[in-house]
Amino acid sequence: MSESSRKNPTDVVALDLPAAELDERQEQYFQVCEEKLGFVPNVLTAYSFDPAKLNAFTGLYNDLMLADSGLSKLDREIIAVAVSSVNKCYYCLAAHSASVRKLSGNAVFGEQLVMNYRSADLDRRQMAMCDFAVKLTETPAKVIESDRESLREAGFSDRDIWDISAVASFFNMSNRMAIATDMQPNDEYHAMAR
Amino acid sequence: MSESSRKNPTDVVALDLPAAELDERQEQYFQVCEEKLGFVPNVLTAYSFDPAKLNAFTGLYNDLMLADSGLSKLDREIIAVAVSSVNKCYYCLAAHSASVRKLSGNAVFGEQLVMNYRSADLDRRQMAMCDFAVKLTETPAKVIESDRESLREAGFSDRDIWDISAVASFFNMSNRMAIATDMQPNDEYHAMAR
Amino acid sequence: MSESSRKNPTDVVALDLPAAELDERQEQYFQVCEEKLGFVPNVLTAYSFDPAKLNAFTGLYNDLMLADSGLSKLDREIIAVAVSSVNKCYYCLAAHSASVRKLSGNAVFGEQLVMNYRSADLDRRQMAMCDFAVKLTETPAKVIESDRESLREAGFSDRDIWDISAVASFFNMSNRMAIATDMQPNDEYHAMAR
Amino acid sequence: MSESSRKNPTDVVALDLPAAELDERQEQYFQVCEEKLGFVPNVLTAYSFDPAKLNAFTGLYNDLMLADSGLSKLDREIIAVAVSSVNKCYYCLAAHSASVRKLSGNAVFGEQLVMNYRSADLDRRQMAMCDFAVKLTETPAKVIESDRESLREAGFSDRDIWDISAVASFFNMSNRMAIATDMQPNDEYHAMAR
Amino acid sequence: MSESSRKNPTDVVALDLPAAELDERQEQYFQVCEEKLGFVPNVLTAYSFDPAKLNAFTGLYNDLMLADSGLSKLDREIIAVAVSSVNKCYYCLAAHSASVRKLSGNAVFGEQLVMNYRSADLDRRQMAMCDFAVKLTETPAKVIESDRESLREAGFSDRDIWDISAVASFFNMSNRMAIATDMQPNDEYHAMAR
Amino acid sequence: MSESSRKNPTDVVALDLPAAELDERQEQYFQVCEEKLGFVPNVLTAYSFDPAKLNAFTGLYNDLMLADSGLSKLDREIIAVAVSSVNKCYYCLAAHSASVRKLSGNAVFGEQLVMNYRSADLDRRQMAMCDFAVKLTETPAKVIESDRESLREAGFSDRDIWDISAVASFFNMSNRMAIATDMQPNDEYHAMAR
Repeated sequence: MSESSRKNPTDVVALDLPAAELDERQEQYFQVCEEKLGFVPNVLTAYSFDPAKLNAFTGLYNDLMLADSGLSKLDREIIAVAVSSVNKCYYCLAAHSASVRKLSGNAVFGEQLVMNYRSADLDRRQMAMCDFAVKLTETPAKVIESDRESLREAGFSDRDIWDISAVASFFNMSNRMAIATDMQPNDEYHAMAR
Repeated sequence: MSESSRKNPTDVVALDLPAAELDERQEQYFQVCEEKLGFVPNVLTAYSFDPAKLNAFTGLYNDLMLADSGLSKLDREIIAVAVSSVNKCYYCLAAHSASVRKLSGNAVFGEQLVMNYRSADLDRRQMAMCDFAVKLTETPAKVIESDRESLREAGFSDRDIWDISAVASFFNMSNRMAIATDMQPNDEYHAMAR
Repeated sequence: MSESSRKNPTDVVALDLPAAELDERQEQYFQVCEEKLGFVPNVLTAYSFDPAKLNAFTGLYNDLMLADSGLSKLDREIIAVAVSSVNKCYYCLAAHSASVRKLSGNAVFGEQLVMNYRSADLDRRQMAMCDFAVKLTETPAKVIESDRESLREAGFSDRDIWDISAVASFFNMSNRMAIATDMQPNDEYHAMAR
Repeated sequence: MSESSRKNPTDVVALDLPAAELDERQEQYFQVCEEKLGFVPNVLTAYSFDPAKLNAFTGLYNDLMLADSGLSKLDREIIAVAVSSVNKCYYCLAAHSASVRKLSGNAVFGEQLVMNYRSADLDRRQMAMCDFAVKLTETPAKVIESDRESLREAGFSDRDIWDISAVASFFNMSNRMAIATDMQPNDEYHAMAR
Repeated sequence: MSESSRKNPTDVVALDLPAAELDERQEQYFQVCEEKLGFVPNVLTAYSFDPAKLNAFTGLYNDLMLADSGLSKLDREIIAVAVSSVNKCYYCLAAHSASVRKLSGNAVFGEQLVMNYRSADLDRRQMAMCDFAVKLTETPAKVIESDRESLREAGFSDRDIWDISAVASFFNMSNRMAIATDMQPNDEYHAMAR
Repeated sequence: MSESSRKNPTDVVALDLPAAELDERQEQYFQVCEEKLGFVPNVLTAYSFDPAKLNAFTGLYNDLMLADSGLSKLDREIIAVAVSSVNKCYYCLAAHSASVRKLSGNAVFGEQLVMNYRSADLDRRQMAMCDFAVKLTETPAKVIESDRESLREAGFSDRDIWDISAVASFFNMSNRMAIATDMQPNDEYHAMAR
């Protein structure tokens, strides 16, 4: 991707943010996105006004969604969509429901999660995971030991509980960041894996 | 700090997480904490079960709270406490009200923010900042352009709006992570800067 | 459609309801659905356990969504989706976002309304219409004269206000009926007008 | 009732709606109301600006409240009042608490339902019915199979569950329609069956 | 009233509380109630298990509702009912809607306030008073200077604002006390001033 | 304390209220406060604009917080803080967390209760007490017999249930009164028993 064809932050958020020079590693990362996804996710373009912030964001994001875990990548995307549906984040719902469709090979399943995870075809383990993530989203102050215990009863390890919590918590950040800046999802997401 | 004296994740969260070896840079970071604060914040101990997650977390945290910004460090700590008060996060309220007391030199001001930012001695600019952060926390789905406009009218630049949003969003993550894992704040916070 | 190929109520809701004989006019109505849509909407199958209830439902529905009005058919479908998104009704979101996609010729617009109408490309008049419908959905007790006045200021007549209210109110019924019975949308909706 | 003595829509709602000619069957229906109740319910007067809408409304209403059902007419009026109390609909509370007083022969019971159904003298079956109706009213997105199961445990058939859902859902429509148009109840309701 | 004919606390609340001897002044107070109202309000019977608590309660109540104030007695009863309607307190709604009917000479007005004060025939001053009382009831944390300013603009003095606050606050106590103990209102209230 | 050194109501609330002459008993009461606490609590100064209101308030307060009860004084202060934390009342949190610190000899415990009682070191009995008080605060309309039963199972007598209810209810009044008048806590509270 030539630098001139790259989108600017102001193209994707409702804030007037100056474009910045990316470093070489970031240029390469954007190139990889282009090659693998066909586009650079607008969230990366948004953060590109400040290379240090871009690094910090992608560092956390990639660890959470891609590192080894007792949760599959699909599990993590399911949490992402269930949480984003509570917060009604257009950007995250568009992007992560596309991932659910792709990873599950089931377009209807992605729709169900956007609309109401309680209507989705989830097994008992996934339902417990979503119930926890949504309670943590809606009424964090009320999460107590018995909520962790419900996850253990559904078969999750303590390390899994950390990961469920971390993904649910991350999207409570990311949803708010996208809404606060009116971040627009790439058009490509809508047609992906239908 | 000798490794043997270091706390384990299980000492500070309600999850059974194995301790892990830190890399040299992380060892040094913990040493710096000991020297400057007198202790390693328990949130770092919690993340220390996985060095990659520790790096990702500190990378984002340090950029947000310490990097150059139109918001002072105190402004950022004020947002942290106002958000954490909505979510009733014991860990973050204990840690960041201590920072507010330290940075403002005003112990009562820290208490006010924990209890209700609307009762705190905030100027018009800070009140607008907190109003935005709290709306983004309570009803993210309802944040719209007029909310950004209110920040501009209070004197904030678009770049400042990004930073207000980023700090408020971060604590919506961090509050949930601390509550989901029942993270305990270090005892030292309570007496700091009284 | 031969009677034998017709779905039973128990195929589409989580209640054990006996199938009933339809009268001739209803048979024809189902045939018309088959011809025009390619399928009989499951909501009609659900109500078919009782021909009198089926008549009552379709009588109200068809008047609301199809009769002459200052609101276009698209306007009415927009309200349907905005309301159903608040109530998180899987059936109505699946069916009526398909209608929005079809009537607007804009698949992304349908997605936006499902996810958060505040992020959708609505003009001022449509935004006022959705704001009213959503307030009436979320906090009916608090709707007062100034809310009607806002609609008048956005260009709506008093007769239009009746129609906006009637469509928003109807979906507050229909959403609850679909959720209470776990009504499943026809698979065909998901792929329509993408 | 002579046509000239009939109230106009504008007498009973806060919208400027033109009066319309009723057809013969509707004239008779209004006459029957006059004879049996002593007055035409204002909700019918409101809908009389459009005979097709009046037919659609009365068609649905009469099936729901009067047709054969495992729920008694009093059961249905109890649900109507419990739902309307959540939504704080003045019209429906005035009209349907009068029906409860009349059908139960117990003026205090009608008052209790208006004020808080949890304080009313309900048997276990009626309490389960109201609990379901009120959950469906307050948090429809959270109604799941275990809620239907609670009704079955209280002795309701699946067909009864349909009817409970249908009445609760209907008043979620009707409450909103009455509030959105500021519909005034007939004075006669207040003194009925005290 | 002979002591033997007096009701016991256990007759009016769902708690097993021993009856206690009243002192002479209290005996007289109960007698005055009998003579003026025709009965001893059950709230007094409830508190009669402990004469000191009865004194404390009546001391506060009588000052609030009967002492000199810029608010008329009817104004104070209006606030009582508007607040109790939010909290859905059966006891207080039954007792204080009776007072509103009596003081206003308007039975319908009492009904309106029970059902939704926004539908009641209130003048601008009374509406401002109820809006303040209801905000203080629903979201006390969000009451700020601009809310007091709205009362001043509606014509209230600062002393009046104290009294509006005091009555609204008192019923937030009294509603909870009555609900927590399942306090039953005297039958006589329901028929009063119809 | 000489009268001239006494604070005026306008020094402690955001309302313009005239100072009034106190009677002898009240003068003595203020003197006792000075001697025992080192200051007159601002809530008393606030009420001092009207000696009758001051008497009524202190009468109720002293009975509730100081009279014999199955609840210890610390139990009652714990309820005060748990309730005030829900309502976010700066005055009551500042004053009563100081009391918790003093009575428990544990400064951290006081902080925990201000921040989130679910994170505090409470035994099962105290947790049940706080759960009841907080439910009564947040959703009074939903408190039913099973909530009282939970208290009995945790070891409370019916008389204790009255006292838990009375303290929780009182602070729902007092929190609102303090917020409605923007009552400022004495500076002394913040440093007490740290």
